[in-house]
Amino acid sequence: MHSESHADAITTQTITPQQVVIGIDIGGTNLRLALADLTGKILTCWSTKTADIFDPADMVQSICIGVNVLLTDPSLAQSKLVALAVGAPGITDAHRGIVIATSYLGGWRDVPLRALLEEALHVPVFVDNDGNMAAFGEYSAGVARTMRDFVFLAVGTGLGAGIMIDGKVHRGVNWLAGEVGYMLVPGTTADPVQNDSPGALEELVGGEGIRQHWRATWKADTTSLNHDASATDIFDAAALGDSLSRSTLDSVARALAYAIYNMALVLNCSHIVLGGSLGLHPGLQAATGAVLQKLNPRVQPTLISSALGGEAQIHGAIHQAIAMARPNPL
Amino acid sequence: MHSESHADAITTQTITPQQVVIGIDIGGTNLRLALADLTGKILTCWSTKTADIFDPADMVQSICIGVNVLLTDPSLAQSKLVALAVGAPGITDAHRGIVIATSYLGGWRDVPLRALLEEALHVPVFVDNDGNMAAFGEYSAGVARTMRDFVFLAVGTGLGAGIMIDGKVHRGVNWLAGEVGYMLVPGTTADPVQNDSPGALEELVGGEGIRQHWRATWKADTTSLNHDASATDIFDAAALGDSLSRSTLDSVARALAYAIYNMALVLNCSHIVLGGSLGLHPGLQAATGAVLQKLNPRVQPTLISSALGGEAQIHGAIHQAIAMARPNPL
Repeated sequence: MHSESHADAITTQTITPQQVVIGIDIGGTNLRLALADLTGKILTCWSTKTADIFDPADMVQSICIGVNVLLTDPSLAQSKLVALAVGAPGITDAHRGIVIATSYLGGWRDVPLRALLEEALHVPVFVDNDGNMAAFGEYSAGVARTMRDFVFLAVGTGLGAGIMIDGKVHRGVNWLAGEVGYMLVPGTTADPVQNDSPGALEELVGGEGIRQHWRATWKADTTSLNHDASATDIFDAAALGDSLSRSTLDSVARALAYAIYNMALVLNCSHIVLGGSLGLHPGLQAATGAVLQKLNPRVQPTLISSALGGEAQIHGAIHQAIAMARPNPL
Repeated sequence: MHSESHADAITTQTITPQQVVIGIDIGGTNLRLALADLTGKILTCWSTKTADIFDPADMVQSICIGVNVLLTDPSLAQSKLVALAVGAPGITDAHRGIVIATSYLGGWRDVPLRALLEEALHVPVFVDNDGNMAAFGEYSAGVARTMRDFVFLAVGTGLGAGIMIDGKVHRGVNWLAGEVGYMLVPGTTADPVQNDSPGALEELVGGEGIRQHWRATWKADTTSLNHDASATDIFDAAALGDSLSRSTLDSVARALAYAIYNMALVLNCSHIVLGGSLGLHPGLQAATGAVLQKLNPRVQPTLISSALGGEAQIHGAIHQAIAMARPNPL
């Protein structure tokens, strides 16, 4: 009897598989997966292009391929996937795991991504908007680890915010909190929003809007850049004294500063974490900070750069998956 | 021994004084006190003018006079004051009970109102900004009793908001959350804020700003109203077809709708509760709702009137005092 129970103990003590999670970032151009341990340390990654993935079933299939590739890594043979979280590029019902609307991926509407993935993978899945994921990433593993209240503001092709209030992601009643690309500030249009058209602020501050404005105002004698320069080219040239680039950067910075100021008047958060390819540009940050500083001495949120950059979303997804796997954190 | 304990029981059972609280609203023109029972029912009120009260010590003295008058009401002879809460017309540190800044009352700066009142009255005191008090009033006893997320927006001489998120007043890191009178929208100036100058949005939407704009645009042949009409006069005349009044109302409504839209893009709250003398005007509500409805089909916060009107602040103060007296609500 004694030897039997000893044998049992040995059986249950034999190698316990390491628990791992997968964080996923569905972007307009790339699908990226990262497998991490329960401390959030990334062990291995996989990615593919999303350019021709429109059907949600195809997306689920691509994710399954990636999950299988990650889990069959020989170094992870003893790993057990316990949870998975996904950041989606659109309005997302995080409670039910439904992507309500996105202008990417051929324009998904009401896609029950969580249910589809749970059915395919048999692990708990959490789905949220990518801006919220990025905010949670900076909060869990980035520059906002000590902040209970901040806004993560992604400035890239478009514009979006993830809002953290009292240590929780604030999503709003229709999952629209932080859709600041539509904000109205001096200089924006106040025309009604058309179906899937970019937001009024996005037209001034987003990469695509900046390119359009550039092409409309471009004259060979005002700039050394050519007609189809990118927003990053323009911001880079502004630092070197290019005249049209400088005035373009200044008008982008003004609109961005007004929007940040308006957010700060509502939320009175201490910090705005700037992410996205344009949000991280030092020239835009400096010019925006200069406008903001003049507006109102009392209302001065501190602008800081995202520490995780393009990895903020995927780190947020990893940490949401960990939170799900371990509902009572150690 | 048995009879002794019986006697004890009788002693402790004899008339227990009724516990009461006092809610106070310090306004730019009136100081109002209301005494209520622990259900929030107002039993008696007292008020005085604040026109010549600049010194905080004088304000405390006036409040003490009011408290004594209320408590010496013969019908309240058996009452015991257990807590008191005050709404102040300015930026207020609610944790420490300090009025940081107000443009009323001769411009208080860093007045430790809670400490002053606790020293004078020997009861626990809570002090908060009046917009936050009004939001809490509507949440506790008004139109927002079933809402966990809403904005109370007071439109009167100036403009201010109290923000409720997940059933809690959201005050912000510097107690400035909801200072939306400074918001920048199409049509406002984006000039730097000068000392104590009204906010950019307030200049378009606040009663004093509307009067100034009216005087600047007034021409006898465009209106039946005279040169020094009030905002309410103007809104009333707009409903009767007065031409200049109509265009004035429309431009106020546009700016107000833009600001509400911006708040909704950040917070995605379901409801905006409109209070203040102008916010309650049906003409302004209708015109604002019409602009809002056209902006964006996805972002449509419901506009509703404050149920408590000018009493929202004082009800909020009563219920904050009750919450303090009874930290674990029944």
